[in-house]
Amino acid sequence: MNEDDKQAAQPDNQQPTDTGETVEAEGEQRTPEELSAALEAAEARAQENWSEYLRARAEMENLRRRSEKDVAAARQQSLEKLAGELLAVKDSLEMGLKAAQEENADAARLAEGSELTLRMFDQALGKFSIEEIDPQGERFDPERHEAMTAQETADYDPNTVVNVIQKGYRIGERLLRPARVIVSKAPSDSGDGA
Amino acid sequence: MNEDDKQAAQPDNQQPTDTGETVEAEGEQRTPEELSAALEAAEARAQENWSEYLRARAEMENLRRRSEKDVAAARQQSLEKLAGELLAVKDSLEMGLKAAQEENADAARLAEGSELTLRMFDQALGKFSIEEIDPQGERFDPERHEAMTAQETADYDPNTVVNVIQKGYRIGERLLRPARVIVSKAPSDSGDGA
Repeated sequence: MNEDDKQAAQPDNQQPTDTGETVEAEGEQRTPEELSAALEAAEARAQENWSEYLRARAEMENLRRRSEKDVAAARQQSLEKLAGELLAVKDSLEMGLKAAQEENADAARLAEGSELTLRMFDQALGKFSIEEIDPQGERFDPERHEAMTAQETADYDPNTVVNVIQKGYRIGERLLRPARVIVSKAPSDSGDGA
Repeated sequence: MNEDDKQAAQPDNQQPTDTGETVEAEGEQRTPEELSAALEAAEARAQENWSEYLRARAEMENLRRRSEKDVAAARQQSLEKLAGELLAVKDSLEMGLKAAQEENADAARLAEGSELTLRMFDQALGKFSIEEIDPQGERFDPERHEAMTAQETADYDPNTVVNVIQKGYRIGERLLRPARVIVSKAPSDSGDGA
């Protein structure tokens, strides 16, 4: 047998059929019975491959639906996890308020209560890699700091954060909110190179 | 032509090939050229269906990878959204602490500050359908309440929440944390039917 017949006889997934060549000349070499058998096999293979294709499509549709559910569930679980950690912080805040509303409320003790609540808050956020950005005295970083204004001063190198108006926050390495800062600049009467 | 030949000549996706019948007798009615042509067509169809199948498989693999990313992204976005809302609450708490640490700190003003912080906290949680469960005076609901103890009292119908030790929280209709309560029970010396 020649190459064509061999290819025609193999399963599809082993070699592409070379459909460019004519088989008329070769056809005369194979008996009608052989051709019929080959035809039947090819038809069966075509049918099987089509079924496989349809099965793959159905599986993909299921995957698509399932992943929509997974996304919604992930969103919900994330919320519930963080919210769950924060409830104790809220409890603490409420207890502080109750104490502050009592007759002999003592400001010092209230301050202690607020400190405790704040520590709990920091810890809860920390569990999710949410950290403060408090860059007092650091070099100004436009990626994480927002300069509200610049201040002439000789006490700091230029472009240093001299004051933090509002702390920033990051979640992991992503910025959640930039720190709002006042940045130093060289005094205008300075004669020396900075 | 008979039924078999008709089926063999149709595209795969229209009718399953009946591979049970022999075609030997019929084969003698078709010329080798006709059979060869049919064979070539069937081979081509089988190949094409296989390609479609492989393409569907590759698409499914991409879908799987993309959905993993989508799930991780959803988790992260959810966190960032809630955390973002809470930063202002933390700011408020910190300002309250600063005020409490000052020399002439006034407990009444500190209480006002705590109330404000708490209101902000409630609003932030509310944006995510996180609500308090504060069932004072309501019928005991084991789905949402956790009974710490029962108290004999004639002032309430039995199985009523007489005291809320700790508020609960729900997120939408899901329970985040049950309310911890004291439940009423009928006084033991009661002769009347309740």
